[in-house]
Amino acid sequence: MISLQYNNLDNTASFHKLKNLDKRIDLKSFLTPERIRTYSIETGGKLSYNYAAMPVDEEIISLLQDLAEEQQLVEKYRALLSGEIMNTGENRKVLHHLLRGQLAGPVTYQGRDLRDFYISQQKRIFDFADKVHSGEIKGSTGKLFDTVVQIGIGGSDLGPRALHIALAGYAYETFGKPRMNARFISNVDPDDANCILHDLDPERCLFIIVSKSGTTQETLTNRQLVIEKMNRRGIAGLDPRKHMIAVTSETSPMAGSSEYLDSFFIDDFIGGRYSATSAVGGVILTLSYGREVFQSLLNGAHQSDKNALESDIRKNASLMDALIGVYLRNILLYPVTAVLPYSQALSRFPAHLQQLDMESNGKSVNRFGKPLNYPTGPVVFGEPGTNGQHSFYQLLHQGTDLIPLQFIGFKEPQYSFNPEIEGSNCQQKLIANLSAQIVAFAMGKDDSDPNKKFPGNRPSSLIFGERLNPEALGALLAHFENKIMFQGFTWNINSFDQEGVQLGKTLTRQILGGKSLDPLLEKYSTLLGIRK
Amino acid sequence: MISLQYNNLDNTASFHKLKNLDKRIDLKSFLTPERIRTYSIETGGKLSYNYAAMPVDEEIISLLQDLAEEQQLVEKYRALLSGEIMNTGENRKVLHHLLRGQLAGPVTYQGRDLRDFYISQQKRIFDFADKVHSGEIKGSTGKLFDTVVQIGIGGSDLGPRALHIALAGYAYETFGKPRMNARFISNVDPDDANCILHDLDPERCLFIIVSKSGTTQETLTNRQLVIEKMNRRGIAGLDPRKHMIAVTSETSPMAGSSEYLDSFFIDDFIGGRYSATSAVGGVILTLSYGREVFQSLLNGAHQSDKNALESDIRKNASLMDALIGVYLRNILLYPVTAVLPYSQALSRFPAHLQQLDMESNGKSVNRFGKPLNYPTGPVVFGEPGTNGQHSFYQLLHQGTDLIPLQFIGFKEPQYSFNPEIEGSNCQQKLIANLSAQIVAFAMGKDDSDPNKKFPGNRPSSLIFGERLNPEALGALLAHFENKIMFQGFTWNINSFDQEGVQLGKTLTRQILGGKSLDPLLEKYSTLLGIRK
Repeated sequence: MISLQYNNLDNTASFHKLKNLDKRIDLKSFLTPERIRTYSIETGGKLSYNYAAMPVDEEIISLLQDLAEEQQLVEKYRALLSGEIMNTGENRKVLHHLLRGQLAGPVTYQGRDLRDFYISQQKRIFDFADKVHSGEIKGSTGKLFDTVVQIGIGGSDLGPRALHIALAGYAYETFGKPRMNARFISNVDPDDANCILHDLDPERCLFIIVSKSGTTQETLTNRQLVIEKMNRRGIAGLDPRKHMIAVTSETSPMAGSSEYLDSFFIDDFIGGRYSATSAVGGVILTLSYGREVFQSLLNGAHQSDKNALESDIRKNASLMDALIGVYLRNILLYPVTAVLPYSQALSRFPAHLQQLDMESNGKSVNRFGKPLNYPTGPVVFGEPGTNGQHSFYQLLHQGTDLIPLQFIGFKEPQYSFNPEIEGSNCQQKLIANLSAQIVAFAMGKDDSDPNKKFPGNRPSSLIFGERLNPEALGALLAHFENKIMFQGFTWNINSFDQEGVQLGKTLTRQILGGKSLDPLLEKYSTLLGIRK
Repeated sequence: MISLQYNNLDNTASFHKLKNLDKRIDLKSFLTPERIRTYSIETGGKLSYNYAAMPVDEEIISLLQDLAEEQQLVEKYRALLSGEIMNTGENRKVLHHLLRGQLAGPVTYQGRDLRDFYISQQKRIFDFADKVHSGEIKGSTGKLFDTVVQIGIGGSDLGPRALHIALAGYAYETFGKPRMNARFISNVDPDDANCILHDLDPERCLFIIVSKSGTTQETLTNRQLVIEKMNRRGIAGLDPRKHMIAVTSETSPMAGSSEYLDSFFIDDFIGGRYSATSAVGGVILTLSYGREVFQSLLNGAHQSDKNALESDIRKNASLMDALIGVYLRNILLYPVTAVLPYSQALSRFPAHLQQLDMESNGKSVNRFGKPLNYPTGPVVFGEPGTNGQHSFYQLLHQGTDLIPLQFIGFKEPQYSFNPEIEGSNCQQKLIANLSAQIVAFAMGKDDSDPNKKFPGNRPSSLIFGERLNPEALGALLAHFENKIMFQGFTWNINSFDQEGVQLGKTLTRQILGGKSLDPLLEKYSTLLGIRK
C-alpha cells in the first residue's frame, strides 16, 4: 500500500492552479445537448449523476482530477475500507461500507472478522423479524405485534425515518400493506411521544430503542415515558419490557439487559449518521417491509460503494460530485447547497442529508486539530419539487445570492396509478417541471422588465434513475455518504467525529443537575420557567 | 397622512452610519443576566421576543431606530393597512391583516367593505363546518364526513399544514379527538396523492380544492386524480363532486362551479403565502378543530399586528426582529438564518417560513424594478430542537461559517402527560437544552484541544411563550409575516409578488405541449424518459 499524506487543501498545487485559473463558466453558452449527453456518470442502483449544468469545463475537470490524486482521495477510501483508523480523534475505524459488502481484505478487531459480525447481526434481525411476522414472538398479552415504533434521535432517527418514508409506495405496490406499520419518536419534547402514542394500541406495539452508547438522554427519556404511559393503561398482563428491543453496542448498558426482549448490535466503527444500513435502520425496515427490501437496499449501496473506487473522476459519480462541490465552495465561495428531490417519497431525505453533510463536514480544524483557513461543509437544505417551486424557488431564481442546486428525479413513480390528465400523466408533469427548472436556472430569461428577468447561470446537478426502489435508494444514500467522505478527505478534516455536540450536553446537565449555575444559564432557565 | 418616500437601503444615512460604525459586538463580554432581562419585547399571544444574544448594543439599536424612521417602516405598514397599493408590480392592495381585525379605517374596493367581506366568508365557513359536524351535510352515499383532505400547493399548503400540525396536541388535550381528521396533498408527483389516498374511505372524505386563480396545475391535476380514483372504486352512488369544496377567488373558473358542493372566497389582496388566516387555512382548521380554535388563531395574529404599529422599536417585536435581521444581513453579511423551534408541534413551521421569507424577499430589484446592489432575503432553514442538536448543530457550533439563529420555545408542553424522569420532567429537559444551547452558542468554550474548542459569538434570538395554543400560534405567525414585511420595506422591495416562479411554469407548458422544443429542454426531457 502506498503511504498516505494528509495535507490541507491550500497546501495542494491543484487548488492554487484552480484558484489562479480565475475562470467563470458561462452556462448560457456552455450548456448544450451534447454536454447533457456526455457529462453523466453511472453509479449504483441504475442511477446516473449528470453535471452538465455545473460550471466546470475540461480544464477544470482535469484540475479536479489532479486534486483527487494529490489528496489521494480514492487511496484514502481504500485505506478506510481496509480498516485503517480514519476517525482519528476518537481512534476508530470507519466501517459502514462493510455493512454492505467486502471491498478490501478482511477487517478484524480483537480477533473478530467484522464483516462476519455485521452479517451475523443482519441474520439475527431477519430471524427475529420472521418470528414476529409469524407470530412466534407476540406481545405480552398474547396479541400479534402490528406496529413498530423506533425511539432514537439524530442518526438513529433521521436516516431510518427518511428511508422508511422513501419506500412506502414501493412496498405498497409490491406487497400491499406493510408487514408492520412504523412510527418514530425522537424529540425529548413530550409532545412528540404523546402525539405518536395516543392512537396506538400498546398491546400490539413493538418498540425499538436505538442508542449506540446506551446513554442518549432523549432516547432513554422517551423509553421511560413509553413505559409509564403503558403502565398507566392498567392493562392486565401488559409488560412493557416484553415490547422493547434494543439496538446498541455490545458494551453499552442496554446490551443484553433483561429490560429488553432482544438486542441487536452495532459497534464503534459505525457512526450514528452512517448507521442507516446497520441494525439501526435494518431492524425497522425489515420488520416493516421484509428482509428482501433491506437486502436490496444494501445491494444498491454496495454498488455505489464500488463505483466510488474508480480512480478516474469521469467514471466516479460521488468523487465528481464531491470535487465539483469543493470547487463551488472553495473557488466560487458559495456557502449553501439546496437538495431538491422530484419525488415526494424523498420528503425527509434532505433532513437526513443535513445531518450527514453538516455534522460530518461542519468543522474548522483539520484531522490533526489545527485550525483551517478555508471554508468546509456548506449549509444543506431542501424540500421536494414541485412543492419548492411554489415556495423558496423565488429566491433561488431571482435572489441576490447564488445557491447551487442538486436535483434528484426518477422516470417512473412508485405507485402504479398515474392517470393521464389534460394530455400527460402526472409523472410526466412532474418530470417536465424538473427538466424545465434545470434549464430555467441555467439559461435564465431576458426581459425588458427587470422584475421579470431571470439572470440564469444558476448551476445544478441531477441524479436520476428509473424508479425509486430499495436498490436505487441504497445507491442514492451511499452516493451522498461517499461524496461527503471524499470532501472531508479533500478538506483534510475528520468527517467522522462530532465534538460540536458536546458543549450543549454539558450545559444541559448542569441546568438539570440543579446546583448553583452560571448566571447566564440561570437567567435563561428562569425566563423559560424551569428555575425560580 | 404623511407622504411616503421609497428609497433604497443604501440611500439612507442611517445605513451608512451603521456601516461606518464598523463595530463588532463581542457577545462573550456583552451577554449578561441584566441584558437577558431587559432585551425583551412582549407581543401577541403572550409571546416575547428576546434579543439579548444578538450582536447589537444601544448605539446600534438607536441607529436601527433611525433607519426605521428614515425608511418610514411603521408609516408604510399603516399605509398598507389602510389599503394603499403595496403590491405595486401586480397593482394590488395587501390585506391579510384585515382578515384578523381592523387596524385602520375601512378598506373598500369596488364599493365593498373588505373587512365585511372577509368576515362574511369566515361566517360562511363556520356555518358550513357546523353542518358537516352535525351531519346536515353528508357524503354522496349518505355517510358522515370524518376526514378532510386539502389539495393545494405552496401558500395553499405549507401554512395550513404547519398550523394544523402545530395545533394537534392542543386540540387533543382540549377536545379529545379532532372533529375531523385532516390530510394534505400538494405535489404533482402522483406518489403524493396515492400515498394519502390508499387508506382513506372515499365515502367519508371531504376534499378542499384550494387555488386562488383556479388554474394551478398541480392542484387541478390532483383534483382530477382523486376523482378518477374515486370513480374507479365503483361504489354505487358515490359522486366525487359532492365531496369537494373550493377555496378560490370569486373571479376564478372554480368559483360557484357545479363541480363543487360549495365555494369559499379570498381575493387578490390576500397573497398565497399570507393566506393561512384566510379561508385557505380557515376551512380545514375549522372543520378539523372547530371555529373557536380558528377564531383564537386570528385573535393572536391580530395582537401581533397591533404590536407592529409601535413606532419605538424597543416595543415593537417584529420591527426589532426585522431590523436586527437587516443588520445581520447587510452589515455583518450573513447569508443564512436557521429557525429552531423547541417544540415538536412546530415541525413544519420552518418549511412555511421558508416560503414566507424566501418568496417574499428573495428579490434583486427594488419596488420600481431597478436592480439592487445589496443583499436582500437570506436562506432560511430549520428543524425542531432537540432533534437538530443531534444533526446539523455541529456545523452551527464549529463550522467555518457563522449562521445566526432564531430559537422558539414554550414553558408548557401541549400534552398534559409530562412525567418526571431522573429528576426532571420531559419539558424541563427540553427547555434546559434550549437554555444551554443559547449560552453555548454565545459564550463558546475554550479548550487546549482545538477540536473541542467552541468559538462562541454565535448570535441568536429567542421567541418564547407560555404554551403553544391557537392564540400563541397566530401571534407567532403574524410576528414573522410582519418581520418579513418590515424587511421588505427596509430593502425597498415588493415583498408581495413572485415573478421568479413564472419561467419554470412557461417552460413546463412548452414540454407538455409536445411541440418542437428548445434543444436543451428536449435533451433533459429525453434523458428523463418523457420524450423519445
